[in-house]
Amino acid sequence: MNELKLLKKILPSLKQCRDVVVGPGDDCAAVENGDSLLLLAADQLISDIHYLPDTPPAKVAAKLLKRNLSDIAAMGGTPSYAVLTIASSRDDEAWFLEFYRGLNEAAQQFNISICGGDLATLPDNFTGDGEILSLSITGRVKQKNICLRSNARAGDLLYCTGCFGNSFATEHHLDFIPRLTEGSWLAGEYTIAAIDVSDGLLLDLERMAVASQLDVVLKLEKIPLRNGADIDSALTNGEDYELLFAVPKEIAEKMEKRWNFPTTRITCIGEFTNSGNGTIYDSSGKNLSNSTNKGYEHNT
Amino acid sequence: MNELKLLKKILPSLKQCRDVVVGPGDDCAAVENGDSLLLLAADQLISDIHYLPDTPPAKVAAKLLKRNLSDIAAMGGTPSYAVLTIASSRDDEAWFLEFYRGLNEAAQQFNISICGGDLATLPDNFTGDGEILSLSITGRVKQKNICLRSNARAGDLLYCTGCFGNSFATEHHLDFIPRLTEGSWLAGEYTIAAIDVSDGLLLDLERMAVASQLDVVLKLEKIPLRNGADIDSALTNGEDYELLFAVPKEIAEKMEKRWNFPTTRITCIGEFTNSGNGTIYDSSGKNLSNSTNKGYEHNT
Repeated sequence: MNELKLLKKILPSLKQCRDVVVGPGDDCAAVENGDSLLLLAADQLISDIHYLPDTPPAKVAAKLLKRNLSDIAAMGGTPSYAVLTIASSRDDEAWFLEFYRGLNEAAQQFNISICGGDLATLPDNFTGDGEILSLSITGRVKQKNICLRSNARAGDLLYCTGCFGNSFATEHHLDFIPRLTEGSWLAGEYTIAAIDVSDGLLLDLERMAVASQLDVVLKLEKIPLRNGADIDSALTNGEDYELLFAVPKEIAEKMEKRWNFPTTRITCIGEFTNSGNGTIYDSSGKNLSNSTNKGYEHNT
Repeated sequence: MNELKLLKKILPSLKQCRDVVVGPGDDCAAVENGDSLLLLAADQLISDIHYLPDTPPAKVAAKLLKRNLSDIAAMGGTPSYAVLTIASSRDDEAWFLEFYRGLNEAAQQFNISICGGDLATLPDNFTGDGEILSLSITGRVKQKNICLRSNARAGDLLYCTGCFGNSFATEHHLDFIPRLTEGSWLAGEYTIAAIDVSDGLLLDLERMAVASQLDVVLKLEKIPLRNGADIDSALTNGEDYELLFAVPKEIAEKMEKRWNFPTTRITCIGEFTNSGNGTIYDSSGKNLSNSTNKGYEHNT
């Protein structure tokens, strides 16, 4: 199943009510809600895909929550509530107690409430111990601050937080910190165009470029590599949970000077160029969008 | 796995922020949101448990949405937005197109927006065609109108909408209409205590009685039976998606007179009696709470 192709067909057909400001297709949906926007997103973790059978359950829980928080961060928002469903084949009370302990701990760390959900047993056609975990999150952002994939403009510089590649081997995919404070600081003031990298730098950058109807020059030599990562891994592995964001050239220097998150590096890795179909070129003009493997093509 | 016992241990440990008015354990959570409350709920459908492999996908989609709408109805609320995740082993584009067509149709029928989600492929340890579908919904209700499981008072009459039992064989579990207009009409004016019956009349009534710290006399002979159902099926089968609600005796007659939903019958099927632990008796004084099979014990 090619989820991406399928969703391209399906998502535009979903009718939205008038108060939906951002519908399906960005990191979060956004709807009118008093003097701010309500953000909504949902994402899932599946055992044997997003974590290993022996990954500590508290880390699985934290990843589930943080993966959704990263979507809120990419919109420049502040998270508020979450609900989750669990479908599991596990008959192991200790696993669930540890899972919820980790979830509670992560929720408190990011000041959100886990306020409901459902727990069900998987049928017999699922073999072994495992589960499908689905979490939905809400957040808030002021309309003037909201960051969209589609908001990059020709000439904007392309920045990233953190570094890329080798996320599984280094366990970054479990231990990362979603860029909430950074996203919220940037939003409205320095950027209105951002995306989080969950499926791969190249794939998520392409989504941003396509949505903004711009081409991009990506300076491969500038991309910060995580320990042990090569450039291919950095471009395609995914699970980085870093932000890509567009900054107008004339305020980029000011933004860099005022950046005050000492443990989070930012790097200018390219530029949004002329109007286009979302093609990504390297500095030598080579088309990177034709790569056969761009990342995990499974997210909306 | 006994989900109910496990959740009893887990849910109280989840820390809630101050603006959470109703936390986990009711049909929806409710949080402060301007001049009304924001309702949040999540529920899932699993193939081979909640529907058959050959159930038409549009009906599966509608059930997924309506099951969540029934939770909003039980709180007296009006639904607004939904997001969903799908984890599927199916390689069948037509199935998904039909699923989303049905989802879109149901969403328009109930005036809500499906505004985001995720679609992923199940790993190989899931055999056959099937999926885990998880949907989260938001809604709104005025604080003075909110209906809680815990709000029944001694002396209140117990009413139900519709009839019970035999939901699978009659396909009621696919074709039901969530009691949104009825719930919203009742809320605040005639009741502030309601629950929807998804896991079984006896089990869901017991939840309401336990939450309200009252015992109940249930008049078995009054319970309306669906075509082909006997009283055991009506008490325990579940998937009825009807409302149980408590009405103060002094306004019950007025409520019955003003009831103006010709296709939805209401029936007085009992009474909340003295303070207690949530024990359910029949009219002869027999304790029904000791039944070994009370229903599907898998929901929060």
